[in-house]
This record gives sequence, C-alpha cells and structure tokens, in this order.
Amino acid sequence: MKGTEAKARVVIESITPQIDGGQYAIKRVPGETITVRAAVFADGHDVVAARLLHRKSGEKKWKENPLVLIDNDEWEGSFMVSTTGYHEYAIAGWIDHSMYWYEGFQKKAAAGEKMETELAIGALIVEKMEKLAKGDDHTLIQHALTVFNDPEQNSEALEIASSEKLKALIEEYPIRENESISKILRVFVDRKKAEFSTWYEFFPRAASPDANRPGTFKDCMEIIPRLEQLGFDVLYFPPIHPVGKSFRKGKNNSTTALPGEPGSPWAIGNSTGGHKAINPELGTMEDFTALVTHAEKHGIEIALDLAYQCAPDHPYVKKHPQWFRWRPDGTVQYAENPPKKYQDVLPINFENEDWKNLWDELKSIIEFWIDKGIKIFRVDNPHTKPFVFWEWLMEEMRKDHPDVLFLSEAFTRPKIMARLAKVGFHQSYSYFVWRETKAKLEEYLTELTTTELREYMRANFWPNTPDILPYYIQNTGYSDSAIRYILAATLSSDYGMYGPVYELLVNDPVPGKEEYYNSEKYEVRHWDWKTFTPFHALIGRINHIRKENSAFHSTFNITFCETNNEQVMAFIKQSKEDNNTVLVIVNLDPLHRQSAWIKLPLESLGTKEGQGLMMEDLLDGNKYQWNKEVNYVELDPVKSSAHIFRVNKI
Amino acid sequence: MKGTEAKARVVIESITPQIDGGQYAIKRVPGETITVRAAVFADGHDVVAARLLHRKSGEKKWKENPLVLIDNDEWEGSFMVSTTGYHEYAIAGWIDHSMYWYEGFQKKAAAGEKMETELAIGALIVEKMEKLAKGDDHTLIQHALTVFNDPEQNSEALEIASSEKLKALIEEYPIRENESISKILRVFVDRKKAEFSTWYEFFPRAASPDANRPGTFKDCMEIIPRLEQLGFDVLYFPPIHPVGKSFRKGKNNSTTALPGEPGSPWAIGNSTGGHKAINPELGTMEDFTALVTHAEKHGIEIALDLAYQCAPDHPYVKKHPQWFRWRPDGTVQYAENPPKKYQDVLPINFENEDWKNLWDELKSIIEFWIDKGIKIFRVDNPHTKPFVFWEWLMEEMRKDHPDVLFLSEAFTRPKIMARLAKVGFHQSYSYFVWRETKAKLEEYLTELTTTELREYMRANFWPNTPDILPYYIQNTGYSDSAIRYILAATLSSDYGMYGPVYELLVNDPVPGKEEYYNSEKYEVRHWDWKTFTPFHALIGRINHIRKENSAFHSTFNITFCETNNEQVMAFIKQSKEDNNTVLVIVNLDPLHRQSAWIKLPLESLGTKEGQGLMMEDLLDGNKYQWNKEVNYVELDPVKSSAHIFRVNKI
Repeated sequence: MKGTEAKARVVIESITPQIDGGQYAIKRVPGETITVRAAVFADGHDVVAARLLHRKSGEKKWKENPLVLIDNDEWEGSFMVSTTGYHEYAIAGWIDHSMYWYEGFQKKAAAGEKMETELAIGALIVEKMEKLAKGDDHTLIQHALTVFNDPEQNSEALEIASSEKLKALIEEYPIRENESISKILRVFVDRKKAEFSTWYEFFPRAASPDANRPGTFKDCMEIIPRLEQLGFDVLYFPPIHPVGKSFRKGKNNSTTALPGEPGSPWAIGNSTGGHKAINPELGTMEDFTALVTHAEKHGIEIALDLAYQCAPDHPYVKKHPQWFRWRPDGTVQYAENPPKKYQDVLPINFENEDWKNLWDELKSIIEFWIDKGIKIFRVDNPHTKPFVFWEWLMEEMRKDHPDVLFLSEAFTRPKIMARLAKVGFHQSYSYFVWRETKAKLEEYLTELTTTELREYMRANFWPNTPDILPYYIQNTGYSDSAIRYILAATLSSDYGMYGPVYELLVNDPVPGKEEYYNSEKYEVRHWDWKTFTPFHALIGRINHIRKENSAFHSTFNITFCETNNEQVMAFIKQSKEDNNTVLVIVNLDPLHRQSAWIKLPLESLGTKEGQGLMMEDLLDGNKYQWNKEVNYVELDPVKSSAHIFRVNKI
Repeated sequence: MKGTEAKARVVIESITPQIDGGQYAIKRVPGETITVRAAVFADGHDVVAARLLHRKSGEKKWKENPLVLIDNDEWEGSFMVSTTGYHEYAIAGWIDHSMYWYEGFQKKAAAGEKMETELAIGALIVEKMEKLAKGDDHTLIQHALTVFNDPEQNSEALEIASSEKLKALIEEYPIRENESISKILRVFVDRKKAEFSTWYEFFPRAASPDANRPGTFKDCMEIIPRLEQLGFDVLYFPPIHPVGKSFRKGKNNSTTALPGEPGSPWAIGNSTGGHKAINPELGTMEDFTALVTHAEKHGIEIALDLAYQCAPDHPYVKKHPQWFRWRPDGTVQYAENPPKKYQDVLPINFENEDWKNLWDELKSIIEFWIDKGIKIFRVDNPHTKPFVFWEWLMEEMRKDHPDVLFLSEAFTRPKIMARLAKVGFHQSYSYFVWRETKAKLEEYLTELTTTELREYMRANFWPNTPDILPYYIQNTGYSDSAIRYILAATLSSDYGMYGPVYELLVNDPVPGKEEYYNSEKYEVRHWDWKTFTPFHALIGRINHIRKENSAFHSTFNITFCETNNEQVMAFIKQSKEDNNTVLVIVNLDPLHRQSAWIKLPLESLGTKEGQGLMMEDLLDGNKYQWNKEVNYVELDPVKSSAHIFRVNKI
C-alpha cells in the first residue's frame, strides 16, 4: 500500500449510476445531464468535502462540479455532456481540515476561550491556502497570514478568523491532502438521433407506382418527399441484398415458392452476391447511393437491415464452410425449432475455430455500407448471435464510427433485451406492442424510465412491424390504429411504424396469429403512395409537434397523472432546459366517448392550485384555461382520441 | 481476446450475494448454507446448463453443486461451508448441445421424420461422452455409440436415443465446451462464536467482595462460576491497562479527579506502561493469564477492550511523537468536540508519515494479547480510526489469526456501521437499544436479516452498556428490564449485557441523559455478587434455552407473526437442519396484562390449519396444543412477560 492510499480517510461507495460495477458505460446524448449520487464519509468527526469529477475520455485534467450532502451520508451532484464519445466521471473526497478549524474557531471564540493557539493553527492553514490563491484572494490571504502571526494585531486577527470572507476563501481554496478518488465510471454519449428519432419502414420492392412490376430504388426516390412531409427522419429498409433461391419461401410463408415469387428478403445471398451486394431487381449500387443522398437532402437517413444469416446459396457457404455447422449427411445445419425447419436460412456457427476472421468479415459488412453513406442499422435477431461478439463489435464501432447507430430487434426475454442494450445497442425494440392497458403501459414506462434500464436502454416504440400485427388492431378501423400510433409517438421519443399497411389500415391477420395475411415478407405488394387520409394528417401533425416541442425529445422526462378512468391515460413531459411542457391525454377506448378527471402534478409543473395554466391543444389549436389541480376532460374517438396540450403558465 | 472467451456464449450476471462488486467477502459460520442466485442465459434457442462452483481458497479444484432455473433466466443453487477461512464461489455455464440434440430428437421422432442424420449427430455426441464416462456408464455409452453407427441396429438405436437412461447419462457427462466462468466471489467463514455468543460485561475493579478495596483479577476468579451458571460464554472487560494520570477524570465525569480516584479505564497508559501493560491495581500478568485459563475451563472466553487512544502520559507520546497531532503551543491535540475538550484522551493522528510503523505497532498490541490467550476483542470507537486501517488489520487477522473475533463499538450513522462490518468486523453493536416499539423492532430486524446487511453484518444486541442507560428503563422496575433482556436474547443470536447494574436494576440516570449516575467508568463500585433474584433465574433459564435450541443460534432465521395488538410481538425462529422451531411471544407493556391473537406462518412451519402443534413453554414447562392458524395468548408482566415455545408437530 502506498502512503497516499493509507492516509486517504474518505470512503466513497455506492456510486450511481453505474452498470455491473462499472463494466459497462451508461448512455446519454449531448445536452443531457447526469445526476450522480454516492455515499461519501470518513472516520471521526472531521469535515468531509467532496467533488464530482468529469472529463472527456483521453483528457488528463478533470473538470469539477459540486457535490451536496443530501442525507444519511448520501451526496449528489450533476454534470452535463455536450460532445459525443466516451466521458468519464468519478468522485473525489478529502478531509477538510481548514473548515474543521474554521467551525471550531467560531465555537471556541463564542465560548470565550483564549484563541492564541487557534490563531497559530489558522496561520498554518492560510499558509497552505496562500500557495493556491491568486490575485485579490492571494492578497487577502497573505494579509490574514501576517495578521494571524502577529500578536500585536490580535483584534484584527480575530475579526478575520471569524469572517464570512475567510469561510468563502476556505471553500474556494481547499487543501486537498490525502484525497480519496473513487473508481472511474464511463458514459458513452451518442449523437442526438439515438434518443430522438422517427422511423418509417417500407419494402422498397413495394415502391412501384405500377401494379404490374415490383418497385425499385428509383421508385423510392418519389416517396421520399412524402415521408419528409409526414415528418419522418429515418427510413428503414428490410434487407436489400440478393435473395436466396434454394428453399425460397412463397406467398404466406409457403415452403415452396412458385416461379417468379420474390422470396423473403431475410434469406440473404445467392450466386450473385451476399451482404455487400444489392438485389439487382431493386437497382444498382449507384441507384442506391443516389437514393441515400436524395433522402439526406430531405432530412431522412436510410437505415439498413443487418441480418447475420445466409441463404443456402450465399457465397459464404462455399467460401467459408468453416463458419457453418455441418451435419454428418454433408448438408449445412439450417435454423430449426424442432420439428419446425427453416431451410431457407442458415445460421452462422459462432463457436467455430475461425471466429476471428468471421468477426472481421461481419464487421466489414457494416463498414462497406458506412462507405455508402449509411449510419443507422436495424439489427435482425441480435439475440441469436453471441453477446460477446456484439460487445466487441459495438466497441469497435464506438472507436471508429461513433456516429453509427444500431437498433436491436429483440422481442425476447427481458434480461436478453437488456444485455444487448448494455453491450452497446443504441435503441431497442420494446414490449410496447404488447402493453395494451393503461396500467400495463404506465408500469412499463416506469420500468424504462426509473430503474437501471434508464441508464442504458432506449426503447423504440413500434405499433406494428412486418412480423407483428397485434391482435387488438386486427380487422379494426381508424381509431384503434390511431390510438396506438399516438401512444407510440408521444410516450417514446424514439418510435417507428411499418408504414403503408398501418396508415392504410391494412390489418387482416393470418387467422389466430399476430401475422399479416399476404405479408410483404413473402410477396410484392402495391400501395397507393398518393392518397392522403385523416390518418396521414394526424401523423404529419404529431411528427411536427414532436419536432417543435423539446419535451418530446426524451423518453425519460415523463410523469403520469392520476385519472379516475382506466380508459383515459394522461402524462406530462417536461424539458426543463427549454421550459417546454406538454400534457398528453389519450382515450384508450376506440369505440366510446370517455371522460375523466385529470390530476395535475402541480409541484412538478412549478405552480399551485388557483394559479392559471393555459392549455393549448397542439392538435386542433383550441385553448383552455385551467386553474385547478383536478380538471375535467372528455374525448370522443369520432372527433379525436387525444389532447396534446402545450402547458404555459399565465 | 482468446478463443475460449470469444466462443463462450453463456452470459452470467447479477450474482448474489456479492458486496460492492465482489470487493468484500460475505460472511458465514461453519454449517451455514449460502444460496446463490444469478442471471444465466445465452443467445439463441440452445439449451443452457449451469453449475454453482465452490472451493476453499487455495484449492485448485472446484466442487460443483446444481443450479436450477427459477424464472426469467434467474438460476439458484446453494452450498454449505463447513470449515473456517476464505472460500470461493462462482458460476459456470455452457451450451448443452447434447441435451439440445436429445430434446430435438424426441420431437423429430414424434413427428415421424427420418432419423438417420439425427442418429449420426447423436453418435458424435456420445463419442465425446465416452471419453468422460467410467465403469458401467462407459460400457453403456460405448454400446450406444456402436449401435448409433450401425444401420443394421437402427431399431435399437432409436430406442436408446429416446431412452430416459440416455438423458440421465447426458446430464451426468456434460460436454462442457466453450464454458463461461463468472468472476470469483468470496465468503469468509468465521468460527461459530461469531454468530452465537452470550456476552457479559463488568469492570474487574468492581469484583471485590470487600467494599473497602477495589477488585482484582483474583477477585474475578470467584465470579467466573456464577457467570457460567448464568450461561454466559464471553466475559468482556473494559480496558485493563494502566490509567493515565494527567487530566484524569473524577466521579461523574468531573474534570478534576480527587486524590485516590481511579480514573476512566479508557484513558490508557501512564509511565508504568500502555496497551501491553496491566494496571497494577488489578494484579499481575500472571494473575491475568490465570484468570483467562480459569474462565476457559468454565466455558468462558475473556474479551478485551481495544481502544486505540492514549492518555497524555502514555509512553507512545514520548517514544512516537510523530503519531500525534502537535499544536503550535507544543502540546498534543486532545480529543474535542468544540467547545468541549477531552484532555485525558489523545487521539492518534493516522494521517502521519510514519503510518506504517504505527499500523504495525497497533497490530502488535493485538498479537501481544493473543499470546496471552485472548481471542475476542471489543473495539472501542472504531469509527474514529480510518476504514483503510481496519481493512488492512482485519485482513491481517484473517490471514494469521482467523479465530480471533472483533466486536465493533460504533453506535453511529448506518453507512459507517455497515462499512466497519464490510471490512471485516465480526460483530457490531447495533441500534437495538434505540428500537423500542414493535414496529421499529420488526423493521430493524427485517433490515438486518433480509437486506444486503445479512451478508456481512452480525448485530450484537445490548439492552445497556456503561455508556447507554436508555431513557425507557431509567428508574423502572423488573419488568421493564426483563422485557428488553428477553428481546435482546431471543431476537439476536449474539447479545450482551453490562451485567451487574442491569440485573440488580440499578438504573438512576444522570438527569436528562442516557448515562448512568455514579457511572463505573469514573469510580469503583461494589456489587453484591452473591445475590440471586428472579431476574437471575430468568437470565439463567433463557441462556440455557438458547444453548439447547439451535433455532437461537442464528439471527437470520426469523419470521414475524401477525398479532392484533401493538404491545404483543411474536416471531418464530427455525433451524431447519435440526428441525428445531421456537415461537417467542413478548408482552412489550411492562405494566399491563396484554392479550392478542397470534397468526402462525403455517406454511413456514410445514403444517396447515387443523393439524395439531404442541407448544411447550420452555420458561415454565407448560404445554398447550394449538390446532389453528390464529391462536389466543395473554401475558401478564406480574407473572411473565413472555412465552418461549418450542414448537413440535403432533
């Protein structure tokens, strides 16, 4: 043990936030604040001082923010991160002998003791402070030192030693001997889009305006302005690569494709290429990069699907047979859930001896598309590839491509979803689609925003996906889908929709399943890309509201309001930095008018009973003045299932 | 990254118990079981297998216990520790490809598939198992291998591949490729007395049968058989060292001692010696070691007080001036709480440059007394010495003297008490003395036995100490003290009492304070060491009951019973290993008869409504048959404030 450790008397424990003892970094975006708590204490009755340290990783010098004692030896402080990349934080604590002396001095002087020795001790302290201070402070301290040491100037010495000014100087120039420094924790700061993004998904082969031929990237060009108008900023495409031919699936997942059927885009690869190639039916690489550029001009980033699996005719199978699991009959092991077989998809065997080359190749796929201008990937079934691989990959990305984002498609067991987020996925599909009642939704949001999950998991709320047509909107009308849309877009700052089917209310299921009938996964569909329904108007309006109101730019700023009706859900979201507050009220019942009394969290709103609040409904422009804590609302799905109020104090 | 890490697909997280990410060892005594939980899961749909590993530290080979999947990827297992010292535990997990194959085989066979390839895969698996198995199992597996590989024996192959026997062999001989091993956690196993001890404190100078002279170690010899009869097994003495002469305190803590006054034993050291010397007024070192041996013969260990502080005339002050804080006026800084001064006690300055020699000397004090036969120390005010020092010292002790126990005297802030326990103190004075109501007692016990504290803190319950005469027993009679005694001795397996004053109901306070008037700390008192009151009978009886009933040998086996009267507290304690169950019911009201309905936790008791329980009151020998979940009791403090039932199923 070194002397610096042996003499460090301050104990620092239980620092939050931290994940698994600091093994993983917490996550934030620029402009977010990190509130750090810790237990800080020392032996004895001395005065303990503590600071919150923070810096960008790689910097030598710490910046320091105050830590304040809350209660029961718990201290709290905060710091803001403004740049992307790794940042570090830690806590420093030391015994504040100067302040202990100062406080003791006042008590002893008040008790009428002789103060000579106390002044002499004070002189030793200000002598140390003198070495730290500059300018006017230095002059003042130097003067104190002279006076403390001069018995002739005793009355001035007593005056200075009891002054508030000296106390302030002691706080300004702490003598930090035998300081304790906690372990260093990390936060990774992603670009803002990791926390605020508005996704739209469609199959590019459905982009054709001509029902007699499949769509191409060129057709997609025409759809971009519409998506911009609707307010989306991420356009996610299912895999755009050549589709496997052997064991190709037909319409409605039939095991044999008829001639001319296009197959599932997730059966990736055939003799013309694999994960770095484009399905020639969609166009050329030039068409694709032109589309990426075009979208960018309209404020839309294109997100690709990253599905690490191969059709049987993917070039990897011949070139890297060691990456697959071979059966004794000389075939490659396909995906299965016995007795079901998925012979069109070969999983990669990550337990192979050539794992290093495999990992490098998988990484190179991402870098290939980054080169083409892609900065967002939606990862297909990440929970079927090893966590250790993802951890490595995400770390590589943070190092080399910190602006590239990954959405984890894992609708699986909670710990598995959480682990993927922990190892670095920026966003996670969530259980939103299976949380239907007010109670379940509130419980889920509370878990996402107030438990440890808040530190590393960003849920992306989807009311549907090509894989999930939830039972409760099957064969229903506008209000059902609109309500789920409103919830997704207002509860979560990250949300997305598998667009055309959803906005056109196409919701016939495969009977008894949460699957779309005539799913686009297995066939080419054609949609009316020109129509503009009230649902389109609502989507455009809400995306506009989201953009304009910073309260919607985070998921973590939510407070639920008590209502006296289980069909009426209400919550406020607040951006304190921008003084932007919204109150969202949703009638969860698609069929009936519902009314409720809404209890506002007046303290959070910084107001009190009797003081007026102006409630401006951003959906229809109506304004209401509310003066009470509890207020009446009524929502009729025939007119609107929601209020989205901007809340302003009068 | 090595291949073994890259291919390890099983994730192991959130292992409990662990303290501060494994920084500190949890604590147990021999015979205790450690229940370990962890999240264990892997990517994909493979079968995951996991084991709990444990071993004595220093051993190379792990022992393995099963882990069982509880729910939500949480696994649980347990192991027992039987020897003292450090033990280690960890979790191993791997993908159980064999079981995945076996389970798939059954489903595919049931679906009527062709099984040739499956048998061939099975052959590869049993080939690996063959290398692990011995004896009959080996023969069986060898046979399976032959049959699986021989198309002629297809029907027998199918039969074997579907057999329960093969499943059992797969479980018995797992193929643990690419295994994940968690971080290794530690438990320190103390000798049993750390968890079950019965303390008695008296001042040896009060042992004299002659009111005209102070007591000596020789007088103490006479008291030992009485303590044995009362059932105590630890006798703790306040400091036995020479008492400082300068600034000696007088009767009732007066700042000047009159000639002949003995001073506080905690003002340690004068010119005749310090922490390694004996106050000559008590006797010689030979007298002391004779007493230690004598006590041992009567089943009593003597515990010494370890107070790391010095009277101004302690030899250290001259010999090691660098260990103290010197004031500019040439005096040593005494203890103070401005404006109060404690000039008879000099604290050690642990922030001195010579800390290494200081630490070694402080350790040598303990070793000096270990040499004289002492194995238990009650540490005075450990919270005023650095935690880093204690951490080092406790580790040294664990290494060199693992059977030596330390009781931490720290009635201070909760995190400070907890930290001392974490760094290794075996027992901790607790807040028991300030937990008066049923609700507060139950809340406190719940905290001690069901939160993380259970893993490292053993509370020692004292109804009084020389420093604390709680308000609620000041100037009261027998029942008040008896109730608090019963609670201490039955709630906690470790308890103690500052004996003579307590059992003789000497409880005059310094007015307005929780301090004894005419405290023994500052003067020699004389007690009647021959008297035998009903309180003595109760103490003897309860200590006997504690010894005979293993349910009282742990604090962590408590379950509170609902009662419908806040004055009636009831709890069961169970030793499942020995099938020993007790039900304690206490009337907390010292003045009035109280009755209540007690609801038994039938499930914990392994019984149900209507099945008879024989309740034998171990205090008075009465027996009652209870047949219901809810039972009536009545306790009159005039007769007895408690039932201590042994519970037996009929």
